[in-house]
Amino acid sequence: MKALVFLDTNKVGLVGKPIPEPGPWDVVVRTTASSICTSDIHTIAGGIAIPQGRTLGHESVGLVHRVGDKVTGFNEGDRVVVGALTPCGYCDYCQRGHSTQCGGALGGFKWTTQREGNLSEYFVVNDAAYNLTHIPDDVTDEQALYATDVLGTGIAAAQLADIPVGGTVAIIAQGPVGLCATMGARLLGAGLVITTATRPERARLSERFGADVVLNPRRCNVVEEVRALVGPEGVDSAIEALGTHETFEQCVRLIKPGGTVANAGYHGWESQAPLPIPIVSFGMGMNAKTIRGLLAPGGREHLTRMLRLLQTGKVDPTPLTTHRFHFSEVERAFQLMSDKGEKIIKPVITYEEGDL
Amino acid sequence: MKALVFLDTNKVGLVGKPIPEPGPWDVVVRTTASSICTSDIHTIAGGIAIPQGRTLGHESVGLVHRVGDKVTGFNEGDRVVVGALTPCGYCDYCQRGHSTQCGGALGGFKWTTQREGNLSEYFVVNDAAYNLTHIPDDVTDEQALYATDVLGTGIAAAQLADIPVGGTVAIIAQGPVGLCATMGARLLGAGLVITTATRPERARLSERFGADVVLNPRRCNVVEEVRALVGPEGVDSAIEALGTHETFEQCVRLIKPGGTVANAGYHGWESQAPLPIPIVSFGMGMNAKTIRGLLAPGGREHLTRMLRLLQTGKVDPTPLTTHRFHFSEVERAFQLMSDKGEKIIKPVITYEEGDL
Amino acid sequence: MKALVFLDTNKVGLVGKPIPEPGPWDVVVRTTASSICTSDIHTIAGGIAIPQGRTLGHESVGLVHRVGDKVTGFNEGDRVVVGALTPCGYCDYCQRGHSTQCGGALGGFKWTTQREGNLSEYFVVNDAAYNLTHIPDDVTDEQALYATDVLGTGIAAAQLADIPVGGTVAIIAQGPVGLCATMGARLLGAGLVITTATRPERARLSERFGADVVLNPRRCNVVEEVRALVGPEGVDSAIEALGTHETFEQCVRLIKPGGTVANAGYHGWESQAPLPIPIVSFGMGMNAKTIRGLLAPGGREHLTRMLRLLQTGKVDPTPLTTHRFHFSEVERAFQLMSDKGEKIIKPVITYEEGDL
Amino acid sequence: MKALVFLDTNKVGLVGKPIPEPGPWDVVVRTTASSICTSDIHTIAGGIAIPQGRTLGHESVGLVHRVGDKVTGFNEGDRVVVGALTPCGYCDYCQRGHSTQCGGALGGFKWTTQREGNLSEYFVVNDAAYNLTHIPDDVTDEQALYATDVLGTGIAAAQLADIPVGGTVAIIAQGPVGLCATMGARLLGAGLVITTATRPERARLSERFGADVVLNPRRCNVVEEVRALVGPEGVDSAIEALGTHETFEQCVRLIKPGGTVANAGYHGWESQAPLPIPIVSFGMGMNAKTIRGLLAPGGREHLTRMLRLLQTGKVDPTPLTTHRFHFSEVERAFQLMSDKGEKIIKPVITYEEGDL
Repeated sequence: MKALVFLDTNKVGLVGKPIPEPGPWDVVVRTTASSICTSDIHTIAGGIAIPQGRTLGHESVGLVHRVGDKVTGFNEGDRVVVGALTPCGYCDYCQRGHSTQCGGALGGFKWTTQREGNLSEYFVVNDAAYNLTHIPDDVTDEQALYATDVLGTGIAAAQLADIPVGGTVAIIAQGPVGLCATMGARLLGAGLVITTATRPERARLSERFGADVVLNPRRCNVVEEVRALVGPEGVDSAIEALGTHETFEQCVRLIKPGGTVANAGYHGWESQAPLPIPIVSFGMGMNAKTIRGLLAPGGREHLTRMLRLLQTGKVDPTPLTTHRFHFSEVERAFQLMSDKGEKIIKPVITYEEGDL
Repeated sequence: MKALVFLDTNKVGLVGKPIPEPGPWDVVVRTTASSICTSDIHTIAGGIAIPQGRTLGHESVGLVHRVGDKVTGFNEGDRVVVGALTPCGYCDYCQRGHSTQCGGALGGFKWTTQREGNLSEYFVVNDAAYNLTHIPDDVTDEQALYATDVLGTGIAAAQLADIPVGGTVAIIAQGPVGLCATMGARLLGAGLVITTATRPERARLSERFGADVVLNPRRCNVVEEVRALVGPEGVDSAIEALGTHETFEQCVRLIKPGGTVANAGYHGWESQAPLPIPIVSFGMGMNAKTIRGLLAPGGREHLTRMLRLLQTGKVDPTPLTTHRFHFSEVERAFQLMSDKGEKIIKPVITYEEGDL
Repeated sequence: MKALVFLDTNKVGLVGKPIPEPGPWDVVVRTTASSICTSDIHTIAGGIAIPQGRTLGHESVGLVHRVGDKVTGFNEGDRVVVGALTPCGYCDYCQRGHSTQCGGALGGFKWTTQREGNLSEYFVVNDAAYNLTHIPDDVTDEQALYATDVLGTGIAAAQLADIPVGGTVAIIAQGPVGLCATMGARLLGAGLVITTATRPERARLSERFGADVVLNPRRCNVVEEVRALVGPEGVDSAIEALGTHETFEQCVRLIKPGGTVANAGYHGWESQAPLPIPIVSFGMGMNAKTIRGLLAPGGREHLTRMLRLLQTGKVDPTPLTTHRFHFSEVERAFQLMSDKGEKIIKPVITYEEGDL
Repeated sequence: MKALVFLDTNKVGLVGKPIPEPGPWDVVVRTTASSICTSDIHTIAGGIAIPQGRTLGHESVGLVHRVGDKVTGFNEGDRVVVGALTPCGYCDYCQRGHSTQCGGALGGFKWTTQREGNLSEYFVVNDAAYNLTHIPDDVTDEQALYATDVLGTGIAAAQLADIPVGGTVAIIAQGPVGLCATMGARLLGAGLVITTATRPERARLSERFGADVVLNPRRCNVVEEVRALVGPEGVDSAIEALGTHETFEQCVRLIKPGGTVANAGYHGWESQAPLPIPIVSFGMGMNAKTIRGLLAPGGREHLTRMLRLLQTGKVDPTPLTTHRFHFSEVERAFQLMSDKGEKIIKPVITYEEGDL
């Protein structure tokens, strides 16, 4: 089979690998569609150390190819999806409800970092009883791709931001995660959703997904503008979806006393310097603000709920799809994602003709 | 009447003032006992700007002296207590359950900063229907003093630290707030309570109040020692009770992914520099850690529950009382608290002979 | 002024009363629009004992007419709304976050039961600092009427039903409260919303407000049908919005182990017999089901969030308005609501020409 | 090996069975100590249908005898404990945090009902990676036995009763579960714990475990007495620990509006009639009361926290042990538990001499 692998810093390529065999608790899936995540781009840029030759990717759907001896409930040919996180389900972290941190910090994220990714013609699903999920007939492969990662991240961010029903929320940056957080805030009852976006096409998507006001941080002072909109005390909740020190600090400033910042941005790229909490805006530690980091949940039960939202039309992230490629063109898709060229947001990669 | 007032930086003195009159929703109380809080010391050192001549103090109990026209349920002579926080009960912050932030950041704290304190022979209780509380007969004045502030702070810290029942918690520093947080962690079902203290007498109190292990931060590396005790992943929860950048950062390091830091220390003294979140220990924003600031709740309903804990012997903070003074000696008590002399932790100030 | 009053069982009439004077903490409002609630109908039928001559109604909006001496922030002519519940804000119930139970069971509900209602040309708002709320310019009187009671009830039901994001919910009965619960479930992220309705016009509204499936309980076995849709284990959450023993029992049967029933129906009409929990469906007490009673929250902070949802178009309950009357015709409106004639759901009553 | 099996209604006996072999994910344990649970007694009385010859029991500790191929982290001879509930960890119920309902209602409870119990010289632990737990050296076998079931049930009841810190709770009945709920309420910060007990020895234990007041329901009207103690509004929380319609109804009456009933009693014995919610005490569905059923959590993570509470002396349930038997006398122990003779509360069964 063909797999897209990491060759060297910022260098990827399609190589041949043997079709994997399932262990007793695994399922091997034949891929029908994949997407590429910003974190794949960060990884190949050196953000996370992985061995050369490691298959990339963690957003794929497909058909069951082979089923491990001990796995029940799946048959060859079933349409299935698996999350970007594939927790084990039994470690202490999983048992205490923090399966995103399976086995330790960020440990629920195993594709690419802990084992082969799934940007390949076939891939193995570990702990299939915990992770593998059937796709309802009326959910497309493209929709299901969004359920693997970015939609769940956006919804988790909106949940952890603790937005009161009818409350106010600011979502800083409108990349794929930020746009999904906008969808999430709209889905979960926010009363006023303020977002920031610099690119016009993303500003338009932001409005489409539920933003009431989109601010351009290049053209205004975001903190001042938000206060003009909601009053000097600020918003109930803020979601950081970029991953810079500046936007993190901004989020703490934006919320009112008693409010919550949900951090959805990855802060590993910029620097290893401490993330700064502006001390006065944090009430010298005493104004009841909450700051939370997060990662998108994994597991079948979560994925089932994400798929249901897509199935009944409660959310529709497919306007995020700006590009379509055949898997043979995946290197070019990677290049575009790296360059942020052609106004790309999310590409859909198909493996056979007529799939999507 | 006599009142202890702020004269100038680090200078306080007893002066004469008229006995206050109650407004229609106020109650005037004749003081029978007071204590001094570390924040009083910070205030007179210039940490918080207040006008000269302002009465200090926010930990007092007494007998009802005069009752405003509109106030029901209180009669002259009733033994009463009022919290360090006296929220209004009707602003948006109070309505949404953040009465500590009444009217804005830290706004529930009104004594001294927003109006006369209560280190005086008589004091006015605003919004008495919300704030004034009867003391049960079998609760002493000394016990009730602890309910006004420091006990509630310690318990709130333990609650907001989200300690799982039987879980592990580290409490950094064992001043009055830290010691009460130790009591709080013990009260609320922690399985292993690790504290840090440099002074032997505070280490002993810490054990008495429920610490299973007391570490001396001058003699060990606290993070390493905690990991040796509970495993490399760290504790479920940490409580910051000192208010320095170093201990704040330490708390983020100490907790496991998914864990919570409750910040009970006031960070206004050291510097106005941002509070640092160590980025790797925060999982680059993604290891599901939560950081929360807090202030002790106010209001009668909360105070009633604190008094009940004292009444039924569930907690006993009176071992914190190291010194007793008559109100005529209050300047000396202030001096001792400023100098941290004579191993002082908390003084009890009485206004008449034979009170306690 | 004219007021609609209770004359005798099932008999109401417009009578003359003096325009009320505000106490120091009150505001007197000149009414511009009102609605009638099913509970008004229950009240006059004898469900709740009230004195003859008592003004009815608790869903009204208007313009500030006179402001009590101690009230700040309101001026004559301001467009204002007040909730069906008008809690005091300072009793123990209010302080502990149960303002619906202000002063005791159901005590937040004061209009009609504890004092004059607001189906009159002028009405008094008690505890105005806690309860009175400005209406944003771009929210109509009609919209604001929905914020007073029924929208808040529906949203509270959806919240307390603890619907997981993307989860499944059954809402039993689609009267005004049930229809608002449907809106609430949709607003708060339900993945599949199943409702029951017997009348075709209500079934259509149910779909419009967010129901994915509407069942007719006269034509199917609701429990079986729901299980056919979601699997034999049942739904995550159920909302009882009728107030009969049968539908209550049904809700307990409908939810899966670990699920929640939010009871929004008033069970006082049918009988005083105990509400039955089907024992096997409740796992003999051990299958982790939760049952919760509720009442719509009151207070300005809550009302502000409801108004924001209307202002930004997140919900629109105005399709519930089936009839419009001038206040001089209010007796006929009452009659229609009693008879459930002309497919009435909610009437809007105006007090001047050209108001809505 | 010898195993205690169900022979016929109310008839048990020791029989010979082969020592079990572990499957790949199992561990076989050699038993060192067991206890008997009231639910074993109910089972053999016919309360739950099980096949003849089925091994009874679900409270046992021991030493690892043999380890399945796929299990890591355990070696022969390790001292281990396993909960009364042994959830799989990967079904939808487990994933959504309701592992007590693993696979369906009450499904986390597998011993005896779904497979062989563990009142035998050896037993198999399924899903050992999820369920098996090391016992710390300084925790005795006897202490660890309490962690398997009854302590966890009592603590879960106290948690789900949502007792405010310093709040009031009534715990109805003081059998083993009720006594552990008393311990739990004390552990989790209740301010006033009122219990009911008819037997003097249990009343004494109740006080020892933390009850402030013990009422004898044969000598007083419990509802009236509780109201006399805490005021007519009632307590914040109530725990039902008997399993009768009468005590269930009493619990709903005992709590104040907004309060919570945690049901820990098994209601399968008395009748299949619906559990009655007294309608007026439930505010006709509107006074914000919550009723919750529950079962003790399982899984290693939970068990570890229970063991930590025992290890650090935060709770000590061993005064519940009234009797000690060798395994050869287990039939007599069963008889005593059935008869409630000799003031038995909990027996400890040992398998070798000198074990405890």
